[in-house]
Order: sequence, then structure tokens, then C-alpha cells
Amino acid sequence: MLRILNCLEDIRSELRRICDRIHDDQVIHKEATVQQILQTVQRQKDLALIHYTAEFDHVELTADSLRVSGAELDAAYQQVSKELLDAIRVAHQQIKAFHEQRIPKNWVQFPADGVILGKRYTPVDAAGLYIPGGRAAYPSTVLMNAIPAKVAGVKRIIMVTPPGVNPTINPAILVAAQEAGVDEIYRVGGAQAIAAMAYGTETIAPVNLITGPGNIYVTLAKKLVFGTVGIDSLAGPSEVLVIADETAHPVHLAADLLAQAEHDPLAASILLTTNAALAQKVTREVLHQLEYHPRREPTEKSIAHFGLVGVVESLEVAAQLSNEFAPEHLELQIAAPWDLLDKIRHAGAIFLGKSTPEAVGDYLAGPNHTLPTSGAARYASPLSVETFLKHSSLIEYSANALIKMAPAIMTLAEAEGLPAHGDSVRLRLEQPDQNS
Amino acid sequence: MLRILNCLEDIRSELRRICDRIHDDQVIHKEATVQQILQTVQRQKDLALIHYTAEFDHVELTADSLRVSGAELDAAYQQVSKELLDAIRVAHQQIKAFHEQRIPKNWVQFPADGVILGKRYTPVDAAGLYIPGGRAAYPSTVLMNAIPAKVAGVKRIIMVTPPGVNPTINPAILVAAQEAGVDEIYRVGGAQAIAAMAYGTETIAPVNLITGPGNIYVTLAKKLVFGTVGIDSLAGPSEVLVIADETAHPVHLAADLLAQAEHDPLAASILLTTNAALAQKVTREVLHQLEYHPRREPTEKSIAHFGLVGVVESLEVAAQLSNEFAPEHLELQIAAPWDLLDKIRHAGAIFLGKSTPEAVGDYLAGPNHTLPTSGAARYASPLSVETFLKHSSLIEYSANALIKMAPAIMTLAEAEGLPAHGDSVRLRLEQPDQNS
Repeated sequence: MLRILNCLEDIRSELRRICDRIHDDQVIHKEATVQQILQTVQRQKDLALIHYTAEFDHVELTADSLRVSGAELDAAYQQVSKELLDAIRVAHQQIKAFHEQRIPKNWVQFPADGVILGKRYTPVDAAGLYIPGGRAAYPSTVLMNAIPAKVAGVKRIIMVTPPGVNPTINPAILVAAQEAGVDEIYRVGGAQAIAAMAYGTETIAPVNLITGPGNIYVTLAKKLVFGTVGIDSLAGPSEVLVIADETAHPVHLAADLLAQAEHDPLAASILLTTNAALAQKVTREVLHQLEYHPRREPTEKSIAHFGLVGVVESLEVAAQLSNEFAPEHLELQIAAPWDLLDKIRHAGAIFLGKSTPEAVGDYLAGPNHTLPTSGAARYASPLSVETFLKHSSLIEYSANALIKMAPAIMTLAEAEGLPAHGDSVRLRLEQPDQNS
Repeated sequence: MLRILNCLEDIRSELRRICDRIHDDQVIHKEATVQQILQTVQRQKDLALIHYTAEFDHVELTADSLRVSGAELDAAYQQVSKELLDAIRVAHQQIKAFHEQRIPKNWVQFPADGVILGKRYTPVDAAGLYIPGGRAAYPSTVLMNAIPAKVAGVKRIIMVTPPGVNPTINPAILVAAQEAGVDEIYRVGGAQAIAAMAYGTETIAPVNLITGPGNIYVTLAKKLVFGTVGIDSLAGPSEVLVIADETAHPVHLAADLLAQAEHDPLAASILLTTNAALAQKVTREVLHQLEYHPRREPTEKSIAHFGLVGVVESLEVAAQLSNEFAPEHLELQIAAPWDLLDKIRHAGAIFLGKSTPEAVGDYLAGPNHTLPTSGAARYASPLSVETFLKHSSLIEYSANALIKMAPAIMTLAEAEGLPAHGDSVRLRLEQPDQNS
């Protein structure tokens, strides 16, 4: 059921099909729906949020119950086990420690007499996190989105997540949000939640940047509000590409592939190996482990549609195929993973060695688990503190420095047909400021 | 004609109107057109580029003449003056020097026994620059887009720009492109050029990241292809906000405002000053300088519609208004500009002091002139080397490090209902790799 391919061109074309598994045409016809939701929220604000939550989530809210109350937040701590709270705190501490490394700092330089240049970093004023709800209630996603915002120094961090019935929010999510320092939590999801954060409503003040994963409606809404606010990325279904040599363990490989497949029938699990015998063992082991999987059917679907084992002639070929695919997660389960690293150009997160399953990074190693999907690693990066920072250029010229550069500036202004650009320099030379 | 407002609330609401001068509804009805151009180029490739160039630019091309030839590139050097070539080279050298500062570097750390974490930076494989054509042929824009790509280490840098009649490209643009190391130049513009770079045609191989400014069709096309490729930002019309105290020179201020207004009737030129007499002098001086402006009419239009002088009670109030507006360019023409810097939260580029007109930064100070517009400085940064880089997280755990973290990982996996995530750790503990 997990196919094995041996021919390089077959593997390559299959990888291309898997990478493009979300087609534009599946998306475009949903755009009108999302556009309408955005416009309705812009006009009717809270009323629209209440309406759409009733329609899509079958939950009746009021303007007062949109925001999760302090009592509910307190109660959440009683509803999670001590063990889970401890695990959340371990993850929090490690994610925070990693994200605090190498944060860009303000700097100035003095490249010439009378010239100061520099960069000055500031956080966005307010960030909004979208956290999926329902069955896929992931406290780790709360930590991975909120912690970099907090480390960046964002003053106001809000979170939206669709309500369950009652209409409660998963207590683990509420605990993770409080541990990470989220300031406001609203029980609203879907495109309407993105609209609320972008445009603001009576209850939800707008933010400047929206991050976090969601379904296709949420992703489309993020794309459409981009420009009104910043967004982190357009998240697609998750994927792992594993490169394994003969030293890798088939049981471990099978578990890693299934850990990806269990996310979503659209998730993709790919193994490239130099060892044909290993390929056989892994496919058998996947079948075996699937038998006991509590959510066998959707996991099986993912493996059948977007699972692949490719047998390749060398690790270099595997690296080249991986670069073409640009996986979200790349595992190097080989004897000398650091040696292959130089050949890897595009990947969201790289897991080196046989004792580093993706789950380590999903939860608590420290690096972010919000990663570029669907080939976006060709141009995009993991969510990071930098996502929540922006910088301003700083330029100061003295009167003498301006005199020195005036001819070149005026020449360029003339060439570009922008006379007032030239005048802004010329008039400073002809009519110098008495005070400067 | 350049209005003076004295009431804080009037200034604030006028700034809001100016910031929102590009309305969603002006944009949305163009989307269907752009969507169709994108789809046609995806299907018909070169043929579509030739068709749209005939339709929109009234230029007949063939597949062979799409790419600017080596002979044309050589000839361009004969067509620019020695003075202009020198100015381009001065600008090139200074922009390069600035962009080479503080480029993020690969790093690893060893936070615990058997754990290696890090970040590894790599450039995109191929970048495509959109350079506007026609009257607004700006060699500076070529330098500002190509140099950071080159400094980032991008191996393939291509450029597209709409053809003039003949169908030549402005020689200053061709020279700037060659000086900056652009590898391929194509004479095609508009949404069709963006589509060609995103999807590829027979002649133009696709790229991974598209940068550069353009008109509303180009900007819409960039928004729509985002996800297939990366983009720098959604550029709107240019704007400057000047904060001036009584020490500023009205003639200089007027020239700076006009230098912005001459770009585009939609450009915005704003002065906030603590000195009412200065406000009067500047508006008179703007009128005076306009009389001699070679493109008086469009410049006047910009000043009339989106020009504003606000008299405010303090520099702190000016800074607060500026933060609300989040200007692309901010000039601090005040006695102590560095003292006010702490109060500034959002701006693309900040020009400090009275001898630093925006033109210095537009051309050659070094920092990029591709800056966030229309309030995007609330969440976005100038174009920079980082735009052309992305990073991968690196994670390695030893078998012992995994054992130590296993309980927390398995607890979180269970809480999230992802059993195979837990299994990928549990099975490594239960059936350890004999080789590791």
C-alpha cells in the first residue's frame, strides 16, 4: 500500500505530484466565499462573528462570550494533569531558550565623515495567533506561535480558536496560552476570525500581524488580508521526507512516516533510501503499525495517496530529489548526517541522525514547528522572532557629507526625470541652513 | 493648495484618509483581469507574453526578442554618459557596502548533553526583479533590488521590464543591471511578466522569489502568485512624512515634499511641524517651486489630494501621529533628531537631521529604497539581504538525550491525540538501534 519506486524519473515525477497536491483550482472557487465572509465581518463586526460561529461551528455566542473569561482561564489549570502541565513547561522553556538566540540587534556605523547609517529593530504592536480547534487541538502550536512573539517584545498578543460545543476551548490550549503570555483569547475560528483580527470588531481590536496554521478557508483569508496586515505564511498540509541509508532502523522509519500521515489525509510521508531491502522492511512495518493505529482510516488514506518510498542510487541523488521537493521536515537517518548537510539547499527543519524523530522538534527541542510547506522552503523560513520584528533604516548626513555626494545624486535624479529630487539637494547647497 | 490643519483630530483623520488612499474596492474589480492573465500565461507561455505585450505595450515581440541580447547590453554602455555611469558606480558601491553589514550567519549550539541545535542560512536559487518601465525608468531601483540578491548569494538573478517602442529598454537600466550582476533580462512587463517568473515559459525559467515595485496590476499579480513563489511586499504609491521644528528651512522642506509628490499623483507628502509660521512659509514655497516644475500638473495633483501640513503642539505628538501613519519615509528635520528616535515605532526609513533629504537614501546612502508603504511599516521592513535568504532549523538528539525528553514528548503527543508521534519516540526506546 505504501508504494516503492525504483526508477529515478518515476520518483521525481511522483514527488512533483505530491508537492503540488493542493491545486490552485481546488482553492480558487472557495475564494468568493472567503471574500464575502471578510466583507461581512468588516461591515457587521461582532454580529457577523456571532452569525458565522452559529452557522459553521453550531455554537451560539454573544458579544460577551466571544472572549474567554478569566474564570475559564483559571479553571483550565484544574483540567489538565500535572504531567501535561510539566510537559508544557519543559517545552516552553526550551522553545524560549532557542528563540532567544541571535535576535537581530540595532546597530549604527560611520562609513564616512559625517555619515551615520544603521538599522533599528522594533516589534509589531499587536500580533494575532490563529489556533485550529476541534479534534486537532494542539497546545504545542500555541507555544510555537506565542513564544517568538513574546521574545520579540510584542506588547499585545491575542489568540483566536474555534469553540467546541458548550462552547468550551480545550483546556490544554488555554493553559499553553497563559504559560506563553497570550493577553486575550477569543472563541472564534475560520475566515471570520482572520477578518476580525485584520479589520477589528467592537470586541476584538485589530492586530498588525497574523500567524498560525488553519484549514483552506483560514489560509485563503490570510492571503486576502495580507497587505492590510502582515502574515507569517500560507500553511498547507504537513509533510516529511526521510533520507535513510542501510544503517537506519525500519521500525523507527515506519513510525516516523506514520507520525506524519496521522495528521491529515493530505499529509505526505516520503522515504528515500539507498537500500532496497530496507525499503521492503519499512513498507511491511508501516502496514503492521497501521493495524493498531486508533485513527487507522485517515492515516491509511494519507499513506496510500501521498506516501512514497523511493530507492535511489546514492545519498547525493536523495539530497538532489529532496532539494527539488523542498520538504517542510527533512530527516537524515544516515550514518553521517552532517556530511550530507552541504548538499541540502531547501528544507524547513532538518533532523539529523537516527535518534532525532520529527516529534522531538514538533514539541520541545526548541526550534519552531511552524515551517514552510508545499515547496515554500525554496523561499521561506520557519516562524521565528524575526517574523514579529521589523526594522527601519537610519540615515544621517552632515552638510559636508551631502556636498560630497551631491553631484552623483543630482546626476541620478536627472537621469530618472525627477527634478525635485535633485532640487532637494541643490537648494540645500545653494541656500544652506544657517543653523547647521 | 497645500492645506494646513491645526486641530489634532482633523490631522489624525486626514492622515487616516491619506494612508487608506488605495481602497480595496479599487483593487478587487481588477483581480479577475489579473487572474485571467496569470492563467493564460500558465497555459500559453511565451505566446501569451507576446500577445499581451502587443495588446498592452503596443510592441511586437517574438520568442527570440523577448530576451535582451548581448549586443543590446553592450551598446547600452555607449548610450549613457560617463557622469551617469560614475554615479551608478558610486551608488552601487555604497549600497553594496551597507547590505554586506550584519548578514545572518549559520550557527549551532550545544544546549544540553547530546543535543545540537542551530540555524543554517541559504539563498533562494533564483530571484526575479520587476522593474517598471516607460517614463519611470529608474536605474536606482535595479540596483536596490539586484544588489541584496547578489550579496545574499543568489545564483540566478533575472529581471523583467516592459519594452519601450523600438522595442528598446532604457540604457541606464541595462547598465545598472549589468553593474549589479543581473544574469538575464527580458522585455516584458505587467501581470504577464509576474506570471512568467512564477510559472515559467519556454524562454523564461521560473524563479523562487519575485521582488520590485509595479503598478496595481503588477502588485495584484504578485499577491496572487504568492504561495507559488515568495514575494517581497505589496508596494503602493510612495509617501514621505516630515517632522520639522522651528530650526528647519522652509525652502528645503518644500523641495522634499515636492520630491515625493513628483513621483505619482497618488504619492503623499506630509509635514508635521510645531511651528505655525514655518507651516505658512512652506506652503508658499511649495507654490513657488511648483511654478518651475517640468511636470507641474501631476505633481500639483498629488499635493492637492494627498499633501498635508499639520501644526502640532509638540514633537511627541508629531511622533505619535507618525506612528499611527507608519510612513514609508520619515524625515526628522529637527534640532535633536536622535532624541526623538525613541518615540518612533514604525517607519520604513528614517532620515535624521536637516542635511539628509530623502533623495540621499533614494539613490546612494546605502540602505534600500524599497520600503513598506501604505502603513505596512507597522509589520514590514525594507527590502534587504534577508529577503533573499531563508533558513533551516537544525536539530540533532543523541539516543540518551532522546531518552531524557521522551516522557514529555509522549505526554504532549497523547494530549494532542497523535499516537504515532509518541510511537516514534517509544519505539526508539523499546527497540534501540544496534548501531547507535
